[in-house]
Amino acid sequence: MSKKLTSRAEDYSKWYNELVVKADLAENSAVRGCMVIKPYGYAIWEKIQAELDRMFKETGHQNAYFPLFVPKSLFEAEEKNAEGFAKECAVVTHYRLQNDPNKEGKLRVDPEAKLEEELVVRPTSEAIIWNTYKGWIQSYRDLPLLINQWANVVRWEMRTRLFLRTAEFLWQEGHTAHETKQEAITEAKLMNNVYATFVENFMAIPVIQGVKSESERFAGADETYCIEALMQDGKALQAGTSHFLGQNFAKAFDVKFTSKEGKQDYVWATSWGVSTRLMGALIMTHSDDKGLVLPPNLAPFQVVIVPIYKTEEQLNEITTIVNSILSDLRSVNISVKFDNRTTYRPGAKFAQHELQGVPLRVAIGPKDLENGTVELARRDNLTKEVISLNDLTNRVQGLMIEIQETLFDKARTYRDEHITEVNSFDEFKRVLDVKGGFLSAHWDGTIETEDKIKEITKATIRCLPLEYKEESGVCVYSGKPSKRRVLFAKAY
Amino acid sequence: MSKKLTSRAEDYSKWYNELVVKADLAENSAVRGCMVIKPYGYAIWEKIQAELDRMFKETGHQNAYFPLFVPKSLFEAEEKNAEGFAKECAVVTHYRLQNDPNKEGKLRVDPEAKLEEELVVRPTSEAIIWNTYKGWIQSYRDLPLLINQWANVVRWEMRTRLFLRTAEFLWQEGHTAHETKQEAITEAKLMNNVYATFVENFMAIPVIQGVKSESERFAGADETYCIEALMQDGKALQAGTSHFLGQNFAKAFDVKFTSKEGKQDYVWATSWGVSTRLMGALIMTHSDDKGLVLPPNLAPFQVVIVPIYKTEEQLNEITTIVNSILSDLRSVNISVKFDNRTTYRPGAKFAQHELQGVPLRVAIGPKDLENGTVELARRDNLTKEVISLNDLTNRVQGLMIEIQETLFDKARTYRDEHITEVNSFDEFKRVLDVKGGFLSAHWDGTIETEDKIKEITKATIRCLPLEYKEESGVCVYSGKPSKRRVLFAKAY
Repeated sequence: MSKKLTSRAEDYSKWYNELVVKADLAENSAVRGCMVIKPYGYAIWEKIQAELDRMFKETGHQNAYFPLFVPKSLFEAEEKNAEGFAKECAVVTHYRLQNDPNKEGKLRVDPEAKLEEELVVRPTSEAIIWNTYKGWIQSYRDLPLLINQWANVVRWEMRTRLFLRTAEFLWQEGHTAHETKQEAITEAKLMNNVYATFVENFMAIPVIQGVKSESERFAGADETYCIEALMQDGKALQAGTSHFLGQNFAKAFDVKFTSKEGKQDYVWATSWGVSTRLMGALIMTHSDDKGLVLPPNLAPFQVVIVPIYKTEEQLNEITTIVNSILSDLRSVNISVKFDNRTTYRPGAKFAQHELQGVPLRVAIGPKDLENGTVELARRDNLTKEVISLNDLTNRVQGLMIEIQETLFDKARTYRDEHITEVNSFDEFKRVLDVKGGFLSAHWDGTIETEDKIKEITKATIRCLPLEYKEESGVCVYSGKPSKRRVLFAKAY
Repeated sequence: MSKKLTSRAEDYSKWYNELVVKADLAENSAVRGCMVIKPYGYAIWEKIQAELDRMFKETGHQNAYFPLFVPKSLFEAEEKNAEGFAKECAVVTHYRLQNDPNKEGKLRVDPEAKLEEELVVRPTSEAIIWNTYKGWIQSYRDLPLLINQWANVVRWEMRTRLFLRTAEFLWQEGHTAHETKQEAITEAKLMNNVYATFVENFMAIPVIQGVKSESERFAGADETYCIEALMQDGKALQAGTSHFLGQNFAKAFDVKFTSKEGKQDYVWATSWGVSTRLMGALIMTHSDDKGLVLPPNLAPFQVVIVPIYKTEEQLNEITTIVNSILSDLRSVNISVKFDNRTTYRPGAKFAQHELQGVPLRVAIGPKDLENGTVELARRDNLTKEVISLNDLTNRVQGLMIEIQETLFDKARTYRDEHITEVNSFDEFKRVLDVKGGFLSAHWDGTIETEDKIKEITKATIRCLPLEYKEESGVCVYSGKPSKRRVLFAKAY
């Protein structure tokens, strides 16, 4: 193993970057801002995908696939959306390379192969999808149209960080069409709720559901619902968004339907997405100075078994026992790996599995053979226990639930302790500086105030929580009246 | 439903294009050569993915994800590969759009945002992946490296057809690295065999395994293994390829490893892929003039139940029975849909499910209620039977296997009847013209002859089958001596 991880206290940002690479989750590639997702990281993403996909289908959605490219003329059709993404678009202008006549063995773009119309690499797919929906929707019988796409998208970011902000990322994007405004709003809320349920139950990350302020809204949306999480350094992370798009895209692409009553109207739309950014949230919520900590629901393998032996004979004995453990655990759907590599010593294996966040380690050595025991080591709280082999399956099943819950509870406690009500701008700045986290504050509802606060403190409105109490107060910045608190934070 | 499908006899190509669209599998998009895969088509692709993914993992492979873009300088590193794909590369040259100063509300490429180095949208990922492997492989302990990627790729084709040849398509690409030449060859053969097993057992499409002639080899490969299928119009379709890449990419990207003995050597490589093209093979192998025919293993739903009723009361009675059928069938893992839409009549539903190839239709009407029966209609051979409700689960289970086998047997019989041994060039041309299919012929092994035959007949060498008998003969074209027959055909 390579040298020790930088600690969070020392340099949180460095800790994160090192952890992602050392735990074999991802690395930077030769392409500016684009990452390689390594097998171990991708296995976690596959678990995220599988569960979300199940939840989407359970709520009536179907998957489809739309083109990677968006012709410029379609891209610009919904003006706000186009304006919001124009500055970060990768653009295909040519469709052929040729031998470079000036450089032996090199290629150059063939100047003859210029596209008549440039193609934007999708930063999001509303434009290409709504242009397609135009052909799919004629009558109320075609509605609701409930579609999801798993895809890669590209947003040319100047400052990138593995998983959190990359030029190319993987995501899913739902795009739905409805007869009525109310139905579309219900859908947008439903999917935000699906995200919240998934992120809390599966990723063990507590989130706050809310709506965005106007200036933080998705370009082209009438309302953006979101789930906001809090990282260990006190910064917030937007983990998912679900947009009520009104009739904006239907109007831009002329998508009308005939109602039961024979009336023509534009359809109502939503879109919603989560991305590989969730991997960043996962890492930053649970991990510690020893490396990654994974909730059992998302671990590529939940249990690793490491044999400790000196002789071939001991290894054989251990292997016999492990084979029976493997089949017992697998029969109750525990994913388990027997790390019987002969090229690494137990110490190196322990270090690697700790770094990679395997929830539970089982070690079996010569003493265990004598006593009919095994040693369990929990990754989350680093405790160890020796138990009878007979109790193993039950104990492991129980621990999977316990670890999952412990991680969530710990994260929720931290998060709850870091929501601070502040009632003056001085307090706002001080708490932000000293403690971080979410600041629950009155705000006068104007973009001007929001901008000023951002300019001065770098904190933004993360959301107007869906759950709140009406409360008369005055804006922390302007002193103007306000009827509710909103959540500010510095954010990823 | 829209008007009748063109028949295969009338215009095979038109039949295919219409079928893909009418059965709701895919359609052309606003982007030249790029398709939209519709939910029903995508659901079939998901079944293909799930089973292949399972088989890849069972053979020790892990998934990962590499960037969409390949910097031009990396792309050109392996010269043969670069030369092979240069003419069909979409190229990103800019990373920003801006408001067009000459056209209100329009965007244009920002001339200030030109990339220093152009980015090729991956037509295949050897270059970016081998550049990454350089950092992953140091010693024999890092080998074999067995990785697969599910991704979209872009090859700028001038003449495109839904699924068969599209500018963007979805695929998986395996990329492995090995210590020895023999191990890499074994891997390439193994994966070709995985493809053959999958395509035969799951897609019910018989294939011939073989190797490509030098001129049909993948650009950058030392050997290309392939599986070749035969469509109903007598044209062959390459359904998958698996390449032994020698040390070509290891040398181009300087990927060496230290062996157990401490020696340094370049690693040996394979790559292998199948794509959404398989959808085209599926459609063209089994479907008929009434529409799509799906093998039960790949059908989004294997059984559809259509209620036939006049009164609300009848529908309620039928629904009670259907609910119990649904739970019985699902308990034995049959996927089933109850088509209780009130917006369509039974006749329209029958037509739609026939067009969409649902393997088995169950109809329940008032008479069935009286008699305790249901009517089954098989999509593959269009036969019907009335059976007792009590026998339904057993019968459906049996039919799923029977239909799967029947489809495979039918396709294999057709394929076997269309492999013709030809012994002269006249016979070659006549059989190709009149009967089509594979021509098993002696060939002198030269590219010149291969080119000449292609020029004259449009037939190419599909493969040198792995299973063959040594046999002295003379080349059908040149009359020069030959030791074995190879398979020629016109191909997609």
